[in-house]
Amino acid sequence: MYDQVIDKNNPNSALKVTQGTENRQDVNKDLFKHIKKVKSLSVEDYVEGILSGNRTILARAITLVESNLYKHQLIAQEVIEKCLKHSGNSIRLGITGVPGVGKSSVIEVLGKKLTSEGHKVAVLAIDPSSERSGGSILGDKTRMELLSSDPNAFIRPSPSAGSLGGVARKTREIIILCEAAGFDVVIIETVGVGQSEVLAHSMVDFFLLLQLANAGDELQGIKRGIMEMADAIAINKAEGKEKERSELAAINYRNALHLFPPQESGWQPKVFTCSAYSKMGIDDIWQNVLDYVEMTKKSGYFYKNRNTQNLRILSESISQTLLDRFYDSDVAKTKLDIAKDDILDNKVSAYIIAQKLIDEYFQSLKG
Amino acid sequence: MYDQVIDKNNPNSALKVTQGTENRQDVNKDLFKHIKKVKSLSVEDYVEGILSGNRTILARAITLVESNLYKHQLIAQEVIEKCLKHSGNSIRLGITGVPGVGKSSVIEVLGKKLTSEGHKVAVLAIDPSSERSGGSILGDKTRMELLSSDPNAFIRPSPSAGSLGGVARKTREIIILCEAAGFDVVIIETVGVGQSEVLAHSMVDFFLLLQLANAGDELQGIKRGIMEMADAIAINKAEGKEKERSELAAINYRNALHLFPPQESGWQPKVFTCSAYSKMGIDDIWQNVLDYVEMTKKSGYFYKNRNTQNLRILSESISQTLLDRFYDSDVAKTKLDIAKDDILDNKVSAYIIAQKLIDEYFQSLKG
Repeated sequence: MYDQVIDKNNPNSALKVTQGTENRQDVNKDLFKHIKKVKSLSVEDYVEGILSGNRTILARAITLVESNLYKHQLIAQEVIEKCLKHSGNSIRLGITGVPGVGKSSVIEVLGKKLTSEGHKVAVLAIDPSSERSGGSILGDKTRMELLSSDPNAFIRPSPSAGSLGGVARKTREIIILCEAAGFDVVIIETVGVGQSEVLAHSMVDFFLLLQLANAGDELQGIKRGIMEMADAIAINKAEGKEKERSELAAINYRNALHLFPPQESGWQPKVFTCSAYSKMGIDDIWQNVLDYVEMTKKSGYFYKNRNTQNLRILSESISQTLLDRFYDSDVAKTKLDIAKDDILDNKVSAYIIAQKLIDEYFQSLKG
Repeated sequence: MYDQVIDKNNPNSALKVTQGTENRQDVNKDLFKHIKKVKSLSVEDYVEGILSGNRTILARAITLVESNLYKHQLIAQEVIEKCLKHSGNSIRLGITGVPGVGKSSVIEVLGKKLTSEGHKVAVLAIDPSSERSGGSILGDKTRMELLSSDPNAFIRPSPSAGSLGGVARKTREIIILCEAAGFDVVIIETVGVGQSEVLAHSMVDFFLLLQLANAGDELQGIKRGIMEMADAIAINKAEGKEKERSELAAINYRNALHLFPPQESGWQPKVFTCSAYSKMGIDDIWQNVLDYVEMTKKSGYFYKNRNTQNLRILSESISQTLLDRFYDSDVAKTKLDIAKDDILDNKVSAYIIAQKLIDEYFQSLKG
């Protein structure tokens, strides 16, 4: 029944069904009851499906990656390892900006442009604060209506709330799967508040910061330091009455960027004005991304940066795993709060107490 | 013999002798041979000496803190714990800027002003790249000739090269000892390159960035992100021909700062021009520090920030200790390089290999 209804509405019905599962777990269960062909897939099924560009299977593999169930993780990790050697062949573009700056509209216009040129575009999000049920970034598909029904685009909301490290890891793994499935542009959308954009920056080739001309209230939300991570800044909504003010803002940002030291890549970030509404400036921004990729591939920085990012994942994983295990231990759970109180009361040295806690933790591993 | 010679030259001979030990280990040994009263001190001797403001004993305690010998660390940590409740009563001021910006000259002028007003000023440095023998910051005392012979000032070079975390910890511990010895202004000098200023920022109340008007080459050395950490920026060497250009640079920085979001403290950083050479602007900068302290003590941010810093030391110590022990293990030493190669060859997932390495490490602890 459901199959029929969905087929009538949209030629990408299989995709639609699978994408539906991302947002509403309750509908999800109901839906799969009516679909006969949904069955457990083997690691080989997943890998084969992903490599052949099957979006339904890609979406299901991502659901596995996002699952915290041990048995799902076991399969997911095998799938990822097998996809690894088919990954890496995309331009990874990070886009950040505070809520209301128009990230989704810019991504929609840019995404449609890219698919019309023959690209396959995956749009992922990092938003550690999001719950699937809530109105998080990309949670509301209607924001990118055209792109979400485009057969050459694949939109996926943020992995649901969890530790920042967990969300980061899952997003990196989803990038691998998308690339293995043939997506050659991967856009990582993130809200310009908190730590999510630092994470996004650590996994992309190019980082675009969207701003608004009326810098008053909107800017307040941008985290300090974000501006210096940007490879380009675009003043969005530079349309109608705002056009002039946007040009002026762009000049201010250009002056400010000159005060920053040059990037390690040797790249000099540019400031654009754009309007997703009147489709102005988006082409220039993409050309800038292409220029960056060309320049950094020539200089070797592109590959150096990817290697650095990959090795950073290893050291971050080691660090995160050690910390997770320690903080999850009985020693930490029973003694950490007392230690904190003692430190704030100037009773003990933080360094000493840290040594003691870890000695106790390692001792507890033996017994 | 030595005592006599030194006494003739300078009334602060005891200090001079002790300070001499900071720079030249060879002279050090020779020197102490001739001084009869140098003997091992007990923890109580150290604590009593420090609390009474005895600078020779303070300097010796700092040498213990800086030592990597286990027996020295045991005493040092006891001394620190006993000094803890007498610490915290200073204004902690961080000063950064690239080499050549004039940090030492500004600190000398500011330090002399403060001691003349009855303050006791300790000047410490963070420079993880420094070796005692090399020409590191503060290594060359002649840079602060007036201040180093001032009985109310205490100047100490950076703990010698080691891990960044190690230098940070030792500097934090030295701050505690200096405060317990009655120093009510502690200045942390750091070079504006690398990670040292992030560390300095994490242990001070107020962070001052020194810049030059001729922003071309000099700015290149400033790490990205430093400008956003600054509570004030001062364009130094605003004298003679450079005065006008410095004023212009100050205006540019003021405009740039307006693009940044406000600090958590609610403080709006100001931009000054100053000249250590003609003693211009230093008073204004210090008044700005006092304004900041008054405002943030009123709002409670001052104390909140100190507490946050103290708890961060705990979590950093835990993190650092876990990592040190892991990376120092046989497992890491024998298997990490292979893991890195496999990751760069896209053979394994970084997350998986991290889990495996840590499992092996914990297993090895049991045996």
